[in-house]
Amino acid sequence: MTTLQPTAAPLRPFLDWPIVTDPAQWQADVALLGSLHGEPYAHDQRPNDQARAPEAIRWHSKRFCYETGHYDFDTGGELRATLPPRCLDLGNVGWTAGDYGAHASQVSARVRHLWSQGAQVVVLGGDHGVTIPILDALDAVGEPVHVLQVDSHLDWREEVGGIRRGYSSPLRWASTLPAVAGMTQLGLRGIGSARRGEVEAARGWGSHLVTAEAFHAGGAEPVLATIPDGRAVYLTIDADGLDPTEMPGVMAPTPGGPRFQQLAPLLRAVARRHRIVGMDLVEVAPSFDASNGLTCVVAGRLILNVLAASWGEGGAFRRARG
Amino acid sequence: MTTLQPTAAPLRPFLDWPIVTDPAQWQADVALLGSLHGEPYAHDQRPNDQARAPEAIRWHSKRFCYETGHYDFDTGGELRATLPPRCLDLGNVGWTAGDYGAHASQVSARVRHLWSQGAQVVVLGGDHGVTIPILDALDAVGEPVHVLQVDSHLDWREEVGGIRRGYSSPLRWASTLPAVAGMTQLGLRGIGSARRGEVEAARGWGSHLVTAEAFHAGGAEPVLATIPDGRAVYLTIDADGLDPTEMPGVMAPTPGGPRFQQLAPLLRAVARRHRIVGMDLVEVAPSFDASNGLTCVVAGRLILNVLAASWGEGGAFRRARG
Amino acid sequence: MTTLQPTAAPLRPFLDWPIVTDPAQWQADVALLGSLHGEPYAHDQRPNDQARAPEAIRWHSKRFCYETGHYDFDTGGELRATLPPRCLDLGNVGWTAGDYGAHASQVSARVRHLWSQGAQVVVLGGDHGVTIPILDALDAVGEPVHVLQVDSHLDWREEVGGIRRGYSSPLRWASTLPAVAGMTQLGLRGIGSARRGEVEAARGWGSHLVTAEAFHAGGAEPVLATIPDGRAVYLTIDADGLDPTEMPGVMAPTPGGPRFQQLAPLLRAVARRHRIVGMDLVEVAPSFDASNGLTCVVAGRLILNVLAASWGEGGAFRRARG
Amino acid sequence: MTTLQPTAAPLRPFLDWPIVTDPAQWQADVALLGSLHGEPYAHDQRPNDQARAPEAIRWHSKRFCYETGHYDFDTGGELRATLPPRCLDLGNVGWTAGDYGAHASQVSARVRHLWSQGAQVVVLGGDHGVTIPILDALDAVGEPVHVLQVDSHLDWREEVGGIRRGYSSPLRWASTLPAVAGMTQLGLRGIGSARRGEVEAARGWGSHLVTAEAFHAGGAEPVLATIPDGRAVYLTIDADGLDPTEMPGVMAPTPGGPRFQQLAPLLRAVARRHRIVGMDLVEVAPSFDASNGLTCVVAGRLILNVLAASWGEGGAFRRARG
Amino acid sequence: MTTLQPTAAPLRPFLDWPIVTDPAQWQADVALLGSLHGEPYAHDQRPNDQARAPEAIRWHSKRFCYETGHYDFDTGGELRATLPPRCLDLGNVGWTAGDYGAHASQVSARVRHLWSQGAQVVVLGGDHGVTIPILDALDAVGEPVHVLQVDSHLDWREEVGGIRRGYSSPLRWASTLPAVAGMTQLGLRGIGSARRGEVEAARGWGSHLVTAEAFHAGGAEPVLATIPDGRAVYLTIDADGLDPTEMPGVMAPTPGGPRFQQLAPLLRAVARRHRIVGMDLVEVAPSFDASNGLTCVVAGRLILNVLAASWGEGGAFRRARG
Amino acid sequence: MTTLQPTAAPLRPFLDWPIVTDPAQWQADVALLGSLHGEPYAHDQRPNDQARAPEAIRWHSKRFCYETGHYDFDTGGELRATLPPRCLDLGNVGWTAGDYGAHASQVSARVRHLWSQGAQVVVLGGDHGVTIPILDALDAVGEPVHVLQVDSHLDWREEVGGIRRGYSSPLRWASTLPAVAGMTQLGLRGIGSARRGEVEAARGWGSHLVTAEAFHAGGAEPVLATIPDGRAVYLTIDADGLDPTEMPGVMAPTPGGPRFQQLAPLLRAVARRHRIVGMDLVEVAPSFDASNGLTCVVAGRLILNVLAASWGEGGAFRRARG
Repeated sequence: MTTLQPTAAPLRPFLDWPIVTDPAQWQADVALLGSLHGEPYAHDQRPNDQARAPEAIRWHSKRFCYETGHYDFDTGGELRATLPPRCLDLGNVGWTAGDYGAHASQVSARVRHLWSQGAQVVVLGGDHGVTIPILDALDAVGEPVHVLQVDSHLDWREEVGGIRRGYSSPLRWASTLPAVAGMTQLGLRGIGSARRGEVEAARGWGSHLVTAEAFHAGGAEPVLATIPDGRAVYLTIDADGLDPTEMPGVMAPTPGGPRFQQLAPLLRAVARRHRIVGMDLVEVAPSFDASNGLTCVVAGRLILNVLAASWGEGGAFRRARG
Repeated sequence: MTTLQPTAAPLRPFLDWPIVTDPAQWQADVALLGSLHGEPYAHDQRPNDQARAPEAIRWHSKRFCYETGHYDFDTGGELRATLPPRCLDLGNVGWTAGDYGAHASQVSARVRHLWSQGAQVVVLGGDHGVTIPILDALDAVGEPVHVLQVDSHLDWREEVGGIRRGYSSPLRWASTLPAVAGMTQLGLRGIGSARRGEVEAARGWGSHLVTAEAFHAGGAEPVLATIPDGRAVYLTIDADGLDPTEMPGVMAPTPGGPRFQQLAPLLRAVARRHRIVGMDLVEVAPSFDASNGLTCVVAGRLILNVLAASWGEGGAFRRARG
Repeated sequence: MTTLQPTAAPLRPFLDWPIVTDPAQWQADVALLGSLHGEPYAHDQRPNDQARAPEAIRWHSKRFCYETGHYDFDTGGELRATLPPRCLDLGNVGWTAGDYGAHASQVSARVRHLWSQGAQVVVLGGDHGVTIPILDALDAVGEPVHVLQVDSHLDWREEVGGIRRGYSSPLRWASTLPAVAGMTQLGLRGIGSARRGEVEAARGWGSHLVTAEAFHAGGAEPVLATIPDGRAVYLTIDADGLDPTEMPGVMAPTPGGPRFQQLAPLLRAVARRHRIVGMDLVEVAPSFDASNGLTCVVAGRLILNVLAASWGEGGAFRRARG
Repeated sequence: MTTLQPTAAPLRPFLDWPIVTDPAQWQADVALLGSLHGEPYAHDQRPNDQARAPEAIRWHSKRFCYETGHYDFDTGGELRATLPPRCLDLGNVGWTAGDYGAHASQVSARVRHLWSQGAQVVVLGGDHGVTIPILDALDAVGEPVHVLQVDSHLDWREEVGGIRRGYSSPLRWASTLPAVAGMTQLGLRGIGSARRGEVEAARGWGSHLVTAEAFHAGGAEPVLATIPDGRAVYLTIDADGLDPTEMPGVMAPTPGGPRFQQLAPLLRAVARRHRIVGMDLVEVAPSFDASNGLTCVVAGRLILNVLAASWGEGGAFRRARG
Repeated sequence: MTTLQPTAAPLRPFLDWPIVTDPAQWQADVALLGSLHGEPYAHDQRPNDQARAPEAIRWHSKRFCYETGHYDFDTGGELRATLPPRCLDLGNVGWTAGDYGAHASQVSARVRHLWSQGAQVVVLGGDHGVTIPILDALDAVGEPVHVLQVDSHLDWREEVGGIRRGYSSPLRWASTLPAVAGMTQLGLRGIGSARRGEVEAARGWGSHLVTAEAFHAGGAEPVLATIPDGRAVYLTIDADGLDPTEMPGVMAPTPGGPRFQQLAPLLRAVARRHRIVGMDLVEVAPSFDASNGLTCVVAGRLILNVLAASWGEGGAFRRARG
Repeated sequence: MTTLQPTAAPLRPFLDWPIVTDPAQWQADVALLGSLHGEPYAHDQRPNDQARAPEAIRWHSKRFCYETGHYDFDTGGELRATLPPRCLDLGNVGWTAGDYGAHASQVSARVRHLWSQGAQVVVLGGDHGVTIPILDALDAVGEPVHVLQVDSHLDWREEVGGIRRGYSSPLRWASTLPAVAGMTQLGLRGIGSARRGEVEAARGWGSHLVTAEAFHAGGAEPVLATIPDGRAVYLTIDADGLDPTEMPGVMAPTPGGPRFQQLAPLLRAVARRHRIVGMDLVEVAPSFDASNGLTCVVAGRLILNVLAASWGEGGAFRRARG
């Protein structure tokens, strides 16, 4: 097995969690990790602005969670009392020297290590390529997993310029993994890297494509219905999936996206019905955020809604832990 | 009775109303007053950024009401023709030398004076602490009053650091006043200063807590149903109660809030059914507003909707005045 | 007939369309034209900030349409395959020396020329006065036309300071044209230049006034029902008609407007049922746009939704062309 | 004699000075006063953005003077120990109802009252028109006064549109007053409202015109040499007189201006040689300031340099007071 | 001879000059022309942000020259009276279809046409590549020309990626032209595209390299001394040559540059001693300008200083015209 | 001896230097290190905005050094050829668990380790408290060291609130160290935390205080004269020491500071005459930087000037290494 190197400590932890950078000491119920780099399409795409997001989101912790002991009206309780005892900020995985394969192996090994402990894993990206080595570790979950994506884009390119693990490919990559049993893609709209062939490939594979307009019209239930009962879920949120009035700090603002008020209850419902074994929040570009940090505040609030619903009254993780 | 000192004239009046700073000359149907300071939690919290809001909101008058003689599609008429003859801008209450109690007494006496004339009172804050001395004057209304709050926070702290009249306490304070017969709190979400104990205290007292999500799901009618027929209403709007995409100029932007398009018709419905004897709009922080002044524009538009519905066809104030 | 002078080439074309500035070579199925100047109310209102919008919107083409050969989830296909072969960017009509009448005649003649070829015409303004010389060319359509406006304002002033073709008058002007058979005005709210008399005149003429609130409450169908079956449509979108959180770059931000997620499907439905012979998008003020160019992105996306629905499966233009 | 009405208290005092708004209690050694309005050239020029400057400059007090008891390296001492005991912030003179003449009389009377007490008067504008009623009170100084101006503009218009006391005229106005014995105008550059006739009039009267370039080339001594020995001085600083990299918050940024590092020692030299009986700092436009408030910081620092040099070791006021 | 196509009219003219877009009507004493595109190093570098600068600089005309009939203190007179009768804004040269060579030929032909009339030519870029086709027309001046450059960079690359006429090469290109008799390069500092080989080539050719530091230390005279008596001058100003506090709107801000207060008198001295037959001002990137437009204001003021000194008392053009 | 833990790798290295985070592999000629935290005065002052500066300055490497192989006009050569072979970016020292003393010991041990190798050490802060544990390692230099500070503040507080190693104390702390043989403090102006007692203590100790004004008047030589011949130098640059037009991203902008054009040649002269064994650049607050990153660009350029002069022709380090 790969020997895991220590991660880099952030300036501030996420919320008030302990920072633990030595993988030998990772014993977590909930583990948050910054992952800065996907596989770049070109040499000068690393680091990109999104690599600054893990620091930025943590920096605004006080703005999206003033105090974990106070009452959270989104979730109906105190976060500190709801969450399990071992919530850790594991710092940031930097760049592992060598080719991208070596780097990706390190990330996968870290996440596999956490999943083999039964931890719920939260990853802050980075661009959407960071999702791929996480998905590679899904086998460690030990049961089939449904991937739920929030994104304006399809991300089903088989390759771009010969690169197969870049930010345009995570859902295509997911479709090739034995551990991935199904897929729901929510928030599609506008034009990205997908061509007709990719749309047909996704549909042909069986991915449930839910456009932003369909979600505005049909609400949460049709989305929930795409996930089989009892199935574990991996959640990947691309910041440009949300409406750009709420998450302006992205590279590709596209109007008409789902809003926090729609997504927060949907994600809580998923977290009560299904064990969300892991999630990532990617593609926040801090240089383009509003001056009040709204993109980071919304990012943090989305994560808190998932965590609190997973571990609170009726939450799937709470049930699973007994 | 306390002798009332003149107030400070603003740079511009609210709309095109006469500025009258001498309390001896206050004979108003509708009276607008700036109140800059709540009781600070620490010495250096006075003045705070919110103290600049009364000037900022008036400064943008032309942007939220181009001309009072023109037709307003929000309310279906000309504001100038709808409102009663004596609409006055009474200027800003500054700081009264001495302890905060002396200052609060001055504010209360001013508002009591206006209410004893039967005026509808509009106060521009300041932080949410400015609501407290206004509520202290509610006895002058001469009938029970229901408090309707729009806010992301509960504001039910009994004290913070020994201070009982600060911005975390106005609704708790209200609950202790004989004139306050009931309470509806709309827009709750995220985490503020409230702990479980405060939530239980509010519910125990009988306050109707309506989260932002419940409002998004249920709409206006359940909110309206919490206010008894014929009951006078005092309305307090914390700018962070609205969605931060519409009111970015606040200290605590929290996603998922009610929007103007939901609140304007709700508040007009309240103003037709109930005499809104007074209202305040607090916690606008002008230093953080968008460069197009959107926070101030929304603030002004909310106030105009309340005023026009109060005094227009079917408005409760119009009915009351015969 | 007026001899048409060449237009000015923009820095970039709209999308990847050929730029053709010589009117002698205009043979278009879809023709996009920048029109910079309405009739100003005062000498120093020309040029105004809105005159910069045609360049600004084109400049952001890549942000609202990354690549015309890719799949567009708003419209369910590839724009390049959906649109007819001859889509041209005709550049910008500058100022024609002489009085405004001479200038307006040039604009009308250009648009009449395009309509007599059967082209679908898209005009980027400029202030809302630019709509008037376009409407003057409607006779070239050869059938009655319904005008559909998206705007917060009524724009029914007969004159302002003696000027009859300024930005407060386009819908009044429309009402006097034989080619205009009906009118729907969507998004009305707040206060603009309209007085009660103008509202009554509009209603008296038979214009269907749909406030923003009515649209939020009633949705698209009541709006669609105002347009007679089979009737050709001219669409005029004032950027301040949309919600100012989505189009901040306007002179008069007014809260409570319709959003892209509501307008895009409505406009696509119109484009399937009716031949939208022309459209304009006016009153974008680039100096006040958000730093991520959101106003221009939304403007571009609205236009693409109209074009793709007009020419795609079930589109009225496609039907008409057989 | 005119009865003086109370002024409006600011949100914060200048530095840590007591706020005294009742003219009956004005007993000052140094008196700071906000004056918001000059005579406007048109109705809608009141209030203008500059009317917000007195609040803005005071708001940044901590940034230009962290603590008056600490050591100031600009002036070589502690401000608190250097200044005389009675330094007062007299608040803001608002608008006096009636015509501008009535208003100007009030301002003049207030300043005359202070000068007859021997106070050093500091006025925060407002546009440059606010200087005129101050100059009208110069007779109360009781000796001839030299006017020293820092400005990019000449301000010698006899009238503009019939208005003789507007912001283009203060130095012309000064030239007509018996109390004004001489004049030095520093920082001239670029183009303003002055025509050749005004330049010749100024020179003809005997005003010493020192362009910014002459000052860059020749330094402080030639400027100092224009002021007769022992002559009292009135100093008027237009913010656009300084380089726009240092004072960006102005209506007319003009490159090539004198910088703080040149002006501060010059003004201190003046204050040691001559009794600066009064000064104003006008034309700061807070809406256009840098986000770090640099314009206000520089404004405050300029004032502090004048005050400390006037009252410190070798200062003319200190000498005069014995 | 190449037939010259009409140019594109700008939204506003430079100053109040007539706009003449038809080359057949170009009879100018001073001619201003916008040139948008140099030869790009890669396909997607056209258009670049600098292509927006000619519109941006003209847009701010009122800010750098309030009124041409007023007195300009930089130059000691009224611009309108100083300049010759035929000052024209010739609009913008857009992109000429075909390869860059065809485009460059058009630009050269236009400028040659103007120089053969004896006009003083002012070109607004565009990136620094726009200088090259202008230099190619220098033969039309009919006498040897000295090139004076203000720039932080050397611009002596023989080619970059095979492109020889890009923005890194204008001074190298100049060195190959028979009409160029000498060269002075002022403001060099920091690191650009130049390598030791280019520095040596420039020195070897005889170019006078004056670093920014040398200019700060030595002033204007050593620079003036590099230009032979009586020699005509072509002036090329790269905006990043100036200090980035004065011209922030550039792609490569480099501290330590010469300031307006140093350059304006230097350029006026050149214009009095030498006929500046042409000048360009390039590399302004409007998207990065300060919100008060300072970069454009400084650009405009530099141009005005050159023009006024050329045609005013003692100016070389005035002398030459007799 | 303390065992040194690995540092955190930054997103990007400084320039193109190798990142080496394992102290066991530190064999450097020039070593750059980020140090994030000084001793905070209060619990919530860690981390502060300045802790983000090391990432921000590296992020802008391309903007202050486009390519190390190109010619640098500030220093007259190619940086890559000038610098010694082993230039390393050692990453960031994070927070060492335990009290601040434990953390400071780690920092001191790291720097001592580098100095015992004879490396030139560059530290990016952090607030000015980060200087203290660096100074504690000065004994490892093995000879007396002169401290040269660029700062607007004196930083001679013995303690603030009981804290002796905070950002107000580094120069006082230096005065207590045997290795510190002298001190020059350049750029003093305005008001900071110093009181008269601290000024007298500094002078009493023998520190050479050079105000910004004295430097503007007297230039570099008097500063150079304060450093004894042959004496090693430690350089500490507080970003607020420079003029705030050049380094706007600071907590305390104070006008009148020295500029890059003055400091760069001064620091190069120091580096030629004296071995600058170490330097730090502290107090950059990235949240307040200009949008073009000017503060970071100036920071980078200052460092490059010191390095290139140290190791280039005539540089003291080059001489020392033979």
